Amino acid sequence: MISKERLAKHFSEMEKISTPNEKPGIFRLAFSDSDWQGREYLMSLMKDAGLSIRIDAFGNVIARREGRNPSLPAIMFGSHGDSVPAGGNYDGVLGVLASIEVMKSLDEENFQNEHPLEAVIFMCEESSRFGMAELGSRVMRGELSTDDLHSLKGKDGKSLYEVLKSRNLSPDNISEAVYNEPLKAFLEVHIEQGKVLEYEKTQIGVVTGIAAPTRLRVFLHGKADHSGATPMGMRSDALCASAEITLLVEKLASEQQNPPAVGTVGILNITPGVMNVIPGEAEMGIDIRSIDKDAKAKIVETLKKGIDIVCKKRDIEYEIKVISDETPVPLSAPMVDYLSSICEDEEVSYKRMPSGAGHDTMFWAPYAPAGMLFIPCKDGISHNAAEHAEMDDIFCVTKLLEKAVKKLSQENFKI
Amino acid sequence: MISKERLAKHFSEMEKISTPNEKPGIFRLAFSDSDWQGREYLMSLMKDAGLSIRIDAFGNVIARREGRNPSLPAIMFGSHGDSVPAGGNYDGVLGVLASIEVMKSLDEENFQNEHPLEAVIFMCEESSRFGMAELGSRVMRGELSTDDLHSLKGKDGKSLYEVLKSRNLSPDNISEAVYNEPLKAFLEVHIEQGKVLEYEKTQIGVVTGIAAPTRLRVFLHGKADHSGATPMGMRSDALCASAEITLLVEKLASEQQNPPAVGTVGILNITPGVMNVIPGEAEMGIDIRSIDKDAKAKIVETLKKGIDIVCKKRDIEYEIKVISDETPVPLSAPMVDYLSSICEDEEVSYKRMPSGAGHDTMFWAPYAPAGMLFIPCKDGISHNAAEHAEMDDIFCVTKLLEKAVKKLSQENFKI
Repeated sequence: MISKERLAKHFSEMEKISTPNEKPGIFRLAFSDSDWQGREYLMSLMKDAGLSIRIDAFGNVIARREGRNPSLPAIMFGSHGDSVPAGGNYDGVLGVLASIEVMKSLDEENFQNEHPLEAVIFMCEESSRFGMAELGSRVMRGELSTDDLHSLKGKDGKSLYEVLKSRNLSPDNISEAVYNEPLKAFLEVHIEQGKVLEYEKTQIGVVTGIAAPTRLRVFLHGKADHSGATPMGMRSDALCASAEITLLVEKLASEQQNPPAVGTVGILNITPGVMNVIPGEAEMGIDIRSIDKDAKAKIVETLKKGIDIVCKKRDIEYEIKVISDETPVPLSAPMVDYLSSICEDEEVSYKRMPSGAGHDTMFWAPYAPAGMLFIPCKDGISHNAAEHAEMDDIFCVTKLLEKAVKKLSQENFKI
Repeated sequence: MISKERLAKHFSEMEKISTPNEKPGIFRLAFSDSDWQGREYLMSLMKDAGLSIRIDAFGNVIARREGRNPSLPAIMFGSHGDSVPAGGNYDGVLGVLASIEVMKSLDEENFQNEHPLEAVIFMCEESSRFGMAELGSRVMRGELSTDDLHSLKGKDGKSLYEVLKSRNLSPDNISEAVYNEPLKAFLEVHIEQGKVLEYEKTQIGVVTGIAAPTRLRVFLHGKADHSGATPMGMRSDALCASAEITLLVEKLASEQQNPPAVGTVGILNITPGVMNVIPGEAEMGIDIRSIDKDAKAKIVETLKKGIDIVCKKRDIEYEIKVISDETPVPLSAPMVDYLSSICEDEEVSYKRMPSGAGHDTMFWAPYAPAGMLFIPCKDGISHNAAEHAEMDDIFCVTKLLEKAVKKLSQENFKI
């Protein structure tokens, strides 16, 4: 039996672990001490649910409930344990705790699954630390090399390679973390991170596809002159150029409708950053998303032309680096139908909807029939101390996940 | 006769004194050993020019060439001898060496000045040591008390009071340093610290006024939502708001003509500053300058209204803190005309222009008809080892200063 009380206790424990200082919000930056403590706690729950734990070279945790027929493809479900700095206690960890609770319930029930079941904690899903998201899933899908681990660096200057070493992981043998076994299905439960379900008073979102980001770094090189002695007409102000670019990103994303797009400048660092000097240098991080890859490509192309116009006008040198350019991922149509049918059976209101945010599921959808379930989060707020999901909704989606897993775990059920 | 060779030698000697270590740049931090050695050297030149030297309680040096009528008001001219750390060899000392050279030339010529003439070395004009600029002039104008000398402290923890004591000066009798004699005129020669003269291939800037800054801190409080899952129409993006404000600062300053203004956003910090979160918080540092206080006040007022409009439209809370609001100092219009006429007589190209940076002259302009002459400095660079002025320009401005002083020194010449 899925236990609401047990779920509540696990969320509460994770919250305690994740507030190392007095600041509001959850601090489980990937591979930080509190991320590591949270992971230890989650593994203790996995053991308590009778699972056998395997840790790969990247630190991803795969906790297995063996099937009656161990040679059958597994059903994998889970999410990530890390958070953005000053984030919330539901993004990611909801999917992990729901998966563990399902496993615990099956264990208590002594459920006979024919296919093996695997609950997973993916490492470093948030891009906050290394500027790239879903790193754990990428590694398991064979998309990161040891060289990549050297070149990915955090703000503290440390490479992902060094960070993995410091956690006694095996960045030199990263290829051993590639997950090569066939999967029958992949499932992930997550908060919506948007306002649609809450506004429409709908309990569950059945995700139809994921709008993957295109991310750019833009470097602007102007001139750091004296702010008092340089007339307005003689300036090459990198901040003013970045301001025009920021508003252009906003305009282009707003103008894209059917399907919609979003565009965000999340990073802006200026140099020297003092009162009496014109900012000579600016570095921007831009994130553009749509579920339509052509619409997204059109925005990126128009933006690049706009940057060129702004910089030429202002006599500013620039570079644009495309950090990532991922293709939006449609999810398995039969899986969407299957999850919808479970909602109907359980008389839970649901809505088929795209995901605006990226998720680990993106990397599993090309590999196995993959599905996601969303629950509402208050005011659509996420990546923020105010992130909140109702325990009723968490309880509801965990029961749905259990139903979905139970049916999938039977050999005669085909998806 | 003004001697270019002598001037060159004096700059060279000052440079030797002011590079105590192997680092590039000039190190004459106020009251430091090299500042003191430089001051000794400058006083030796003053003696060589036949001047009688008086040192006030703060260490300011007033070197007098008596007039035929000693009871007439003096004409004061000079600048400061200190530099910022790793600064240049022209900022400040140019005005002192030009003044001494004028005195030396008058001495050689046995010139008959009716008004007394005073060449001055002001102490501690740079704010690098005690966080406040033009200290020597402030003392002479009665704007600093012994209490202030106790409370002004350097990074080394030493108070200005202690530092003055260590140089055998008289901080307890600081009021005795107040300069109470009437002045007929005050003149200062300085490098531009901007690019205007160089860019416009103009030899001399005749300063019309000194633009004091108004400085604002603006705090913007939006919502740090998920950058992928928050539709464009549901955002409160603090960075987008700051971008509009940045461009508004630029627009308002650019539109202000006759007299011109400058407006700079030099500081912009956003939170959380990661790729996948809409910036919820932004902190801006804004610097606005004009020589016309009404023009400056109008910009600030319009900017505040604009910030309100931007933030209301974007559903962003804000605070504005006025960090400093100093009054610009217009220089004497007859003096501007007079210095311009000398440039014309000498067939030297010149431009009437505001000073964006602060100078000792600010404290003398309310007391006597005051004027400043600028010469170009390479690439507008100052407060830096790369600061450079051409000896031809130094020679030129010293001759202009001599002409200006000679005429002013006659009792029948009124300003």
